Amino acid sequence: MKELRIGMLGFGTVARGVAGLLHRNQTQIEERCGVTLKLIRIATRTPDKAKGMAGLDAVRVDTDCESLTQDANLDCVVELIGGFDPAEKLVTMALNHGKHVVTANKALIAERGMALFNTAQKNHRDFAFEAAVAGAVPIVKAIRESLAANRIESVHGILNGTCNYILTEMRERKLSFAETLAQAQEKGYAEADPSFDIDGIDAAHKLAILAAIAWGTPPDFRGIHIEGIRQITDSDITWASEMGYRIKLLAIAKRHDAGLELRVQPTLVATGTMVSQVEGVFNAVFVKSDHAGTTMYHGRGAGEYPTASAVVADLIDLARNQQAGIAGTRVSPLSVLPHNLRPLPVHGLIHLQCEYYLRLAILDRPGVLAEITAILAKHGISIDAIHQKGGATAQEAVSLVIMTHQCKEKDLQTSLGVLEHLESVQGKPVVIRIETGLS
Amino acid sequence: MKELRIGMLGFGTVARGVAGLLHRNQTQIEERCGVTLKLIRIATRTPDKAKGMAGLDAVRVDTDCESLTQDANLDCVVELIGGFDPAEKLVTMALNHGKHVVTANKALIAERGMALFNTAQKNHRDFAFEAAVAGAVPIVKAIRESLAANRIESVHGILNGTCNYILTEMRERKLSFAETLAQAQEKGYAEADPSFDIDGIDAAHKLAILAAIAWGTPPDFRGIHIEGIRQITDSDITWASEMGYRIKLLAIAKRHDAGLELRVQPTLVATGTMVSQVEGVFNAVFVKSDHAGTTMYHGRGAGEYPTASAVVADLIDLARNQQAGIAGTRVSPLSVLPHNLRPLPVHGLIHLQCEYYLRLAILDRPGVLAEITAILAKHGISIDAIHQKGGATAQEAVSLVIMTHQCKEKDLQTSLGVLEHLESVQGKPVVIRIETGLS
Repeated sequence: MKELRIGMLGFGTVARGVAGLLHRNQTQIEERCGVTLKLIRIATRTPDKAKGMAGLDAVRVDTDCESLTQDANLDCVVELIGGFDPAEKLVTMALNHGKHVVTANKALIAERGMALFNTAQKNHRDFAFEAAVAGAVPIVKAIRESLAANRIESVHGILNGTCNYILTEMRERKLSFAETLAQAQEKGYAEADPSFDIDGIDAAHKLAILAAIAWGTPPDFRGIHIEGIRQITDSDITWASEMGYRIKLLAIAKRHDAGLELRVQPTLVATGTMVSQVEGVFNAVFVKSDHAGTTMYHGRGAGEYPTASAVVADLIDLARNQQAGIAGTRVSPLSVLPHNLRPLPVHGLIHLQCEYYLRLAILDRPGVLAEITAILAKHGISIDAIHQKGGATAQEAVSLVIMTHQCKEKDLQTSLGVLEHLESVQGKPVVIRIETGLS
Repeated sequence: MKELRIGMLGFGTVARGVAGLLHRNQTQIEERCGVTLKLIRIATRTPDKAKGMAGLDAVRVDTDCESLTQDANLDCVVELIGGFDPAEKLVTMALNHGKHVVTANKALIAERGMALFNTAQKNHRDFAFEAAVAGAVPIVKAIRESLAANRIESVHGILNGTCNYILTEMRERKLSFAETLAQAQEKGYAEADPSFDIDGIDAAHKLAILAAIAWGTPPDFRGIHIEGIRQITDSDITWASEMGYRIKLLAIAKRHDAGLELRVQPTLVATGTMVSQVEGVFNAVFVKSDHAGTTMYHGRGAGEYPTASAVVADLIDLARNQQAGIAGTRVSPLSVLPHNLRPLPVHGLIHLQCEYYLRLAILDRPGVLAEITAILAKHGISIDAIHQKGGATAQEAVSLVIMTHQCKEKDLQTSLGVLEHLESVQGKPVVIRIETGLS
């Protein structure tokens, strides 16, 4: 049996999942691709973790990452360190030393992807990253291959399981953001430093990758408008529920004639839509295209086993390519050939038109409502519904929740600029956009 | 630019969709694969339909299917005739004359697939059929490639849009099966002869294909237990709703140690599960596997454009393969290499254990209920809930609906055999299985 000889950088959760999967399902994988996927070597800061693990008896485990990238015994390197340093340097070295590379590193692809694609191309190596987006959900291949006949109109989805878990728990248990985050950390659904997840960075990395594949552009992380979920309160969730909505952290990419709309934001989605039903740690991606219509992909977006499933799917593709003698020559890592990749201008948030959920902390004094509604009216913002939570004293701020009809982001921002400076408005208003027309 | 020269057999709805797509998105497809997908020739019984259609000026259109399969100017043949005769003969001829073949013909793959796979293999030709299952939903590639690292535990889904549309409309509009079918036929969602769809044959063809890919077996259409939806009444749907269920025509395949459970049946699924939310003409497939967990794929399962999207995705794969010089050599049409395909025994319906929905037409006489429940009890079938629709005279049959606790299919069948012969039971009891544990 032919072999694909694999070296692995890093030995965290996903890496252990990959090692375990390759061991457990070796026979089946051989039947499917006619190649043995053989883990030869692991380089990690914590080699002790590999001790005694099933299937690793014959695997060399040490701390020497650089030497691994140059090891003549390896066909490919699986990078599971994460982050930029030293992952970027090591991936580049591996490609330059003739190794194919499989990675789950979303930050690396989203922010430094183009340089790596070029390095892979120059060295005629495969460079694959299905596991970087939505874990077990095969969305990279779906857009790149299965929808390749289509013009993609939009891609939107729930790409961060931590945020979705927190928002789901807040709704179901009526807990505060802080309490829910603490619980998520206890359960291992949120990191000790959760900011990458809850501030929307992780979802934005994934969105940058999906948009690049959907429209044949270099990944444009910097073009994404990013908001996280820290400012969402359990009251927001309750009010949204009462008005027929759930709050989800949505990653949204849309093709306009003028360019790409790219944003990660807490969003109100109507209860009963499929996207509103995506709960807990699950991810889902909806792709709207000119012929296929809307197709949807749903599954576990993170975790040892689901992510390992995606990493090994890439390894199996690579093994098949290598066996056919075409590794590094066939499909670009993105959907279009490299010389056809071209950047698209960003179609900024300011061009958005939608309905809005606004929450203002106001002092409950005579005339305040009249003042606020007059300012909104002056800027052409029409109110669909308004709720004021009573019961506080005149000294205490109360919450005023406003749902607008469709209006322009520009007009909304202008009016918010005025509202923020009113004496009766405390702090910064919370703005959540409402996404209509979803399936 | 290199070319993939395409001949098309048939010019019905999907074929017109393919021709239109290739014309409209030609530039984008060239950017993605570096190959022009060029429609050269069409053979159809109705060549007049192609007259004046955009993009067909230079395409030869005639009725000579056999000559098309032998045309030295063609690299591949797209078969969109459907059925066995003459599709099977023409596909075989095309493969034997060195053409790659792409088809949307589910019956052909499900019932005659193995012979065709062997012919393709012998001739070193690609043979692709993503469009045969679930239209635009890329479930063939997802199981074959994206989940290739996994042991698949089960595949279940809604694979027939006609049935799902009828069941959805019956529930929402409280109409009878006959009325809803007539409306579906008017709208073009059901054929003039709808039996292939409503009797479950079409869904079973698709299930045979998915099971073959999931477990590396030859397609086993004959091993599938098939029931359609003709016997479902609007009352069944209403009762199911009241008890927290929807009725869906589910295609279910499960791997047991003893073999494969394969069945297409109307099924009660809990309201609130994702599968219960798949409505109207949409299809969805859920795949449960050892590492990826449950992944789900949802979209339009039929129609001109969605099916064309899948056909052209296969053509783009083929173009990429041909450009790399590996067409016909790379991936088997199924997930495992041909010499590793092996049949699995059928794990028959009789081994099932589940909860059941039973509807009996009974004469409302003293002692009838006692008689029926005694028979069920004698066979170890425990009743969870029982409803009798009153209001009829003693001469008229009334509906008795029983929900059982989990019990054995064998015991149920034995007791039904007894119940059917009671004087107070009219006609054949309706049995709908309840599928629990779904996401």
